[in-house]
Amino acid sequence: MTLTTRSEHLCCGGQLGFYSHQSEELGLVASFGAFIPKGASREKPVPVIHLLAGLTCNHETFLIKSNVVRFAAQHGIALIATDTSPRGAGTTGETDSWDLGAGAGFYLDATQSPWRAHYRMGSYLDRELPAVTEAIFPLDGTKRGIMGHSMGGHGALVHALNRPDLWKSVSAFAPIAHPAAVPWGEKAFTAYLGPDRAAWASNDATLLLKAGHKHPTTLLIDQGNADQFLEKQLQPWHLEAAAKEAGQPLKLRHHAGYDHSYWFIQSFIEDHLTHHASVLNNI
Amino acid sequence: MTLTTRSEHLCCGGQLGFYSHQSEELGLVASFGAFIPKGASREKPVPVIHLLAGLTCNHETFLIKSNVVRFAAQHGIALIATDTSPRGAGTTGETDSWDLGAGAGFYLDATQSPWRAHYRMGSYLDRELPAVTEAIFPLDGTKRGIMGHSMGGHGALVHALNRPDLWKSVSAFAPIAHPAAVPWGEKAFTAYLGPDRAAWASNDATLLLKAGHKHPTTLLIDQGNADQFLEKQLQPWHLEAAAKEAGQPLKLRHHAGYDHSYWFIQSFIEDHLTHHASVLNNI
Repeated sequence: MTLTTRSEHLCCGGQLGFYSHQSEELGLVASFGAFIPKGASREKPVPVIHLLAGLTCNHETFLIKSNVVRFAAQHGIALIATDTSPRGAGTTGETDSWDLGAGAGFYLDATQSPWRAHYRMGSYLDRELPAVTEAIFPLDGTKRGIMGHSMGGHGALVHALNRPDLWKSVSAFAPIAHPAAVPWGEKAFTAYLGPDRAAWASNDATLLLKAGHKHPTTLLIDQGNADQFLEKQLQPWHLEAAAKEAGQPLKLRHHAGYDHSYWFIQSFIEDHLTHHASVLNNI
Repeated sequence: MTLTTRSEHLCCGGQLGFYSHQSEELGLVASFGAFIPKGASREKPVPVIHLLAGLTCNHETFLIKSNVVRFAAQHGIALIATDTSPRGAGTTGETDSWDLGAGAGFYLDATQSPWRAHYRMGSYLDRELPAVTEAIFPLDGTKRGIMGHSMGGHGALVHALNRPDLWKSVSAFAPIAHPAAVPWGEKAFTAYLGPDRAAWASNDATLLLKAGHKHPTTLLIDQGNADQFLEKQLQPWHLEAAAKEAGQPLKLRHHAGYDHSYWFIQSFIEDHLTHHASVLNNI
């Protein structure tokens, strides 16, 4: 495995870097960001949170716009920020719209042509990216959390509910909480997974809870009430009802006046790091 | 004066917005960002810090990349973020290079053709932008500070040394400390101010100190020792020597391993807000 360092910067006492590598899952060069806090070493590996950004974003967005690094440094937790889709796949239609294809991988493995050749962000995120980053950096893979925004919030919840053994803590900002029921999800799932909705269930947090999946920790979700996508695309009330029915601990906070932007994330990111730290440091 | 609201967002309890207006100084539409902390009102106007970004940046960059909003909110201080140059002037050559023209106004009033028609960021910053923003928002213009990065650090120091009556507190990250002596400054000053170096002196912080200008407060400057522009473009030692000679209080901190990026700014921004608050809240 060859890693290319794009840039490295000292930040808040730790090392913030951007890297690329040839991904086996994607069959393409993939980029990611990483923050390793001061004091991390092979003898003293640190917990790690994977950051999943939303539609149109890339592997830099969450790191630079959310203020997350400061609080990761304070807690001694590393961060890994994946890209939101394969890049340069050349798949027909991948740049025709901002909510499908490039920048819109939905953190799943496509099963349909032409997407299935490269759009395998699900396996990339569960298997390849943790393996690559934990081979390079002093990370404790038994203390691995996941956090995301919007499409990335969907990704964080789905990956954590499917594989709580891999993802020990989870939180989300304004997640697409029930993608199978909203336009963004219907468009992406139809393209990536095909028209048979039975195939969608394992990629929908609300449907996973209804099917009996649970996470052993509390799901922390922040949602702004002035979010322009709340009613049409996010619909957290479905997740809330399913969690209640399933007995899944859920802390869903509604914030009056906050929208869907990174300004909203900046406002509450500190609480998310505290949440992940409280879980990951007690494993 | 007509203000156009581009977007407004709740952030850290306050209001973060982007606006544009027809600037009289520039003869063009100008954009700026503003953060107004919770609790500010006409009856209780708040101190304000103007943020000056560096080459290639715009009025959004410093606000979203530096983490400054969180600490402004904590101190109850407003922020105004100017653009780095006029936009859409159509001046010959303004988009030929990234260090002259668009994105590179150097916060001065050009005296040379063809720049002098629109490149009047000096007067825009000293006069028009404070007037416009203090008419709209509940700001206390008697408690106005200035802070900048790189070219914006140059701008902050120069404006504060020229007009300490307008700018009561000042700080900088990796400023171009002696522009008249380095390539970025020589290129810009030759174009904007002409080849006669006597005309440059009032736009160079080091030369201002040598000419007897002083600021009544301590200048806070942070500089990374791994800054890729340190030796060739920034040269803070000139400013340090001039400040010592002039008896100008200066706190110049050198940080091993830090570079020129916003990752560096993120790491020390909290101290800058504390510095400005300690001055502005004691006026």
